Amino acid sequence: MRATPEHPRRPAAVAFDVNETLFGLGPVGERMAARGMPGGSLDLWFARTLRNGFALAASGTYRPFREVAAATLRGLLLDRDDVEEVSDDVLGAFAELEPHADVASALQRLADAGIPAVTLTVGASAISEGLLERHGLRDLVRECLSSDDVEVWKPLAAPYEHAARTLAVPADRLALVAVHAWDIHGARRAGLVTGWASRLEGTFPEVFDPPDVTGPDLVTVIDGLLALD
Amino acid sequence: MRATPEHPRRPAAVAFDVNETLFGLGPVGERMAARGMPGGSLDLWFARTLRNGFALAASGTYRPFREVAAATLRGLLLDRDDVEEVSDDVLGAFAELEPHADVASALQRLADAGIPAVTLTVGASAISEGLLERHGLRDLVRECLSSDDVEVWKPLAAPYEHAARTLAVPADRLALVAVHAWDIHGARRAGLVTGWASRLEGTFPEVFDPPDVTGPDLVTVIDGLLALD
Repeated sequence: MRATPEHPRRPAAVAFDVNETLFGLGPVGERMAARGMPGGSLDLWFARTLRNGFALAASGTYRPFREVAAATLRGLLLDRDDVEEVSDDVLGAFAELEPHADVASALQRLADAGIPAVTLTVGASAISEGLLERHGLRDLVRECLSSDDVEVWKPLAAPYEHAARTLAVPADRLALVAVHAWDIHGARRAGLVTGWASRLEGTFPEVFDPPDVTGPDLVTVIDGLLALD
Repeated sequence: MRATPEHPRRPAAVAFDVNETLFGLGPVGERMAARGMPGGSLDLWFARTLRNGFALAASGTYRPFREVAAATLRGLLLDRDDVEEVSDDVLGAFAELEPHADVASALQRLADAGIPAVTLTVGASAISEGLLERHGLRDLVRECLSSDDVEVWKPLAAPYEHAARTLAVPADRLALVAVHAWDIHGARRAGLVTGWASRLEGTFPEVFDPPDVTGPDLVTVIDGLLALD
């Protein structure tokens, strides 16, 4: 049976989004606060960074996450003369993110089931690698993949297809797990099975294609995916 | 001579972005504040609305602005039991926006030069029409166009091409005027001449293709466009 929205299949591999899904952005917000940026700057900056990256992608263009993030951050620092210094400091915090409490268990569940996990981010693979190593999670992830590999940002289809190709599984046997509805939507449009953890967004915006599996955290979502036929 | 980034031609028609370019979103923010939403909610919500709309567009999907905006707003109102009421109230404020101080003069400049102006928004044409009428500006605009007309959001090429087709001018004789860098980038990629007013964003993010004409306000931008060969 082919996977359909009504009949998603048990995935043969799982790709995890990185920022906010595996690792919280708290340390980035702390740097912003320490530099005197107002409360709410992290959420606004991250939303605008994705807005700008998606606009580039939608119009057929590609720039790496760090460039888009830095250019967007400058727009929040207009009146300052230490923009470069603050930008380097804030962006440097991406190497110091902390994993969410549900990550190790979710990855271990997959390892126990013999199902390979990869990461798939619009950010840099080297950052994902470093974070996983630092937190003793690297052995639970087969490979760190990025939009950079194909020079196209999620949620266009190419990065999801790249992950399926790398893992040598059909798209409908690869699951994308994320806390962002836009990522779920893009993965679904690319033919993947999808699992959305609600711990960031709370409710799934009904303008996006719904996830196949929903749960409050990554462990519940992985259990739901493993329970598929 | 064909228009190139080095040699943009004097436009035969001008399309204006609407939200934040012609009309400030202040009344929307006031409604949010009156409903007890925290400071910064307007900027965060608008950035996330565009992020979500662009994600839909990038993955080949279309939903009208109001649906995307309402679904995104719900994500900021999770703990409340009056979500629908607040959402209707906040979105209703889009019919009550005020024009920026430079709008009437900029439109009059074009009328005096015999160059037709249209509006081109990801929002609804009826909202643009109503706002222009309410503020005595409707006669200065030939037509109100929208992403809805082609069911594709800016910054994909189709809406810009739709505006050129409607005005019966080649893309490189149509100018797009906006305060958003992402809109300038999309228009440029679609072959239009572009004019960016810096009054919202301050500096133009270098990840986007630069505008042909830049100025602090719409009047200066229009003067710059009219001064092209």
